[in-house]
Amino acid sequence: MQSSLKSNSYIHHHRVGYAETDKMQFLHHSNYARIYENARWEFFRSLNIPYSAIEEKGLFMPVINMDFKFIKPAFYDDNLSIEVRVENILNIKLAFTYRTFNQNSELINEAMVTLAFIKADSGKPVRTPEFIKERLITKTVLV
Amino acid sequence: MQSSLKSNSYIHHHRVGYAETDKMQFLHHSNYARIYENARWEFFRSLNIPYSAIEEKGLFMPVINMDFKFIKPAFYDDNLSIEVRVENILNIKLAFTYRTFNQNSELINEAMVTLAFIKADSGKPVRTPEFIKERLITKTVLV
Amino acid sequence: MQSSLKSNSYIHHHRVGYAETDKMQFLHHSNYARIYENARWEFFRSLNIPYSAIEEKGLFMPVINMDFKFIKPAFYDDNLSIEVRVENILNIKLAFTYRTFNQNSELINEAMVTLAFIKADSGKPVRTPEFIKERLITKTVLV
Amino acid sequence: MQSSLKSNSYIHHHRVGYAETDKMQFLHHSNYARIYENARWEFFRSLNIPYSAIEEKGLFMPVINMDFKFIKPAFYDDNLSIEVRVENILNIKLAFTYRTFNQNSELINEAMVTLAFIKADSGKPVRTPEFIKERLITKTVLV
Repeated sequence: MQSSLKSNSYIHHHRVGYAETDKMQFLHHSNYARIYENARWEFFRSLNIPYSAIEEKGLFMPVINMDFKFIKPAFYDDNLSIEVRVENILNIKLAFTYRTFNQNSELINEAMVTLAFIKADSGKPVRTPEFIKERLITKTVLV
Repeated sequence: MQSSLKSNSYIHHHRVGYAETDKMQFLHHSNYARIYENARWEFFRSLNIPYSAIEEKGLFMPVINMDFKFIKPAFYDDNLSIEVRVENILNIKLAFTYRTFNQNSELINEAMVTLAFIKADSGKPVRTPEFIKERLITKTVLV
Repeated sequence: MQSSLKSNSYIHHHRVGYAETDKMQFLHHSNYARIYENARWEFFRSLNIPYSAIEEKGLFMPVINMDFKFIKPAFYDDNLSIEVRVENILNIKLAFTYRTFNQNSELINEAMVTLAFIKADSGKPVRTPEFIKERLITKTVLV
Repeated sequence: MQSSLKSNSYIHHHRVGYAETDKMQFLHHSNYARIYENARWEFFRSLNIPYSAIEEKGLFMPVINMDFKFIKPAFYDDNLSIEVRVENILNIKLAFTYRTFNQNSELINEAMVTLAFIKADSGKPVRTPEFIKERLITKTVLV
């Protein structure tokens, strides 16, 4: 019996808006970072850790790394399903992985986004707060 | 001999980027508000009133009204010239008017954006600061 | 017994994302045009007129006028309710009005956005298609 | 005497706009992809390969990979210098690397963005066009 973060995933839905398209007809690549941000905080809300509660504790979570692999384009009005997962809970950062599928269940994008914790007042890095670790572990399905 | 705000205008240049286009091939209408924001603060920088100096005095300038008239579309890589002008200096707000021309000197957009002054700490509205009024009048060409 | 477009309204929900905020802590004013675009096409989808079907008929609907009145700011994570309404069905354009409320039922924004119909291939303006007029009238609650 | 792509670099300037900031006061991380897109096409314009000319030849250049490392935040009104470089000219893709410095010459961001060539009509991948390879090599400083 072991806790596994593999289970810590969430599906976020996003309808591709007109403003997000470009003259190539594609969902412009610059939109993924924003969509993935929404996905991870909806995930955290579902774990009862709204991001606003983290900021209320005097912390910010800036992104420190983002990697994207674009596999297929998305188009206007596509109904995307974004699987977001906590990949690593390290002492000083949190890594999220993403897999985006279109309405035909085709994998169109994979990504990893890593965030740090800093103090809002000083900008100094701090360790991953215990209440977040606990919440993530509590919510983990035991396998 | 009279001071006239009519002279208080500035030309800002903007190259239409790929991310700003949409599947209709047009500069998406949602981008104008951002471009016009950049234009008015570059105008203010030219008057030696960088917007950051206004915030350093504990003030914010939220937009309270925006009206846009879209006359012709702009396209990828168009080289836009945006004429921004202070239309009204009222005691409690500032109105800017805009006219955007493409590289063929065609008028493609007209707009008015009105901003208020509020205290950053309380959100309370305040009067247009004297240093801004003075700067705008000082810079006015006397005709 | 009379058909009334007054009934032709729809409520769209929008959660304010982090990327939409600015250093003033507000939902930046440039985001409303995009949010309102999403709201009107979700409204049209609910009327069984997905915007993609309009484009499939060889038409585009560019925005020709936008007016916004900013009454109160919105903040990160606010849960906005956007009431969108078809205000006028003219022969050559469609006007939508918007009223946005925050989770405390405070009116924070009012807007009108007017769109035209043009042919996708030539850019020439065309009349409001009959299938759209019919759909809007059919869906009207008779009072 | 040898041609070296190491010399193929360009400095693009970007002033951080208000709409690009977030409630953390930072240039929001989602803006880098758009800024880097502008930087690489200004670089290509300087090499006499405007991106619009590539599309006129029936090609699109979608992004297939993007990696970002965020080292320090950027703030409102920061005057960023973005060094963009062609890292690899492969037969089927082009890789660009980026280093962004603020006005204090601090390195704040590093990135790599890789693009493919596809046919606009079919979406099929094609090899890097000869006119681009030639232009990139011609412009290389011989060392």
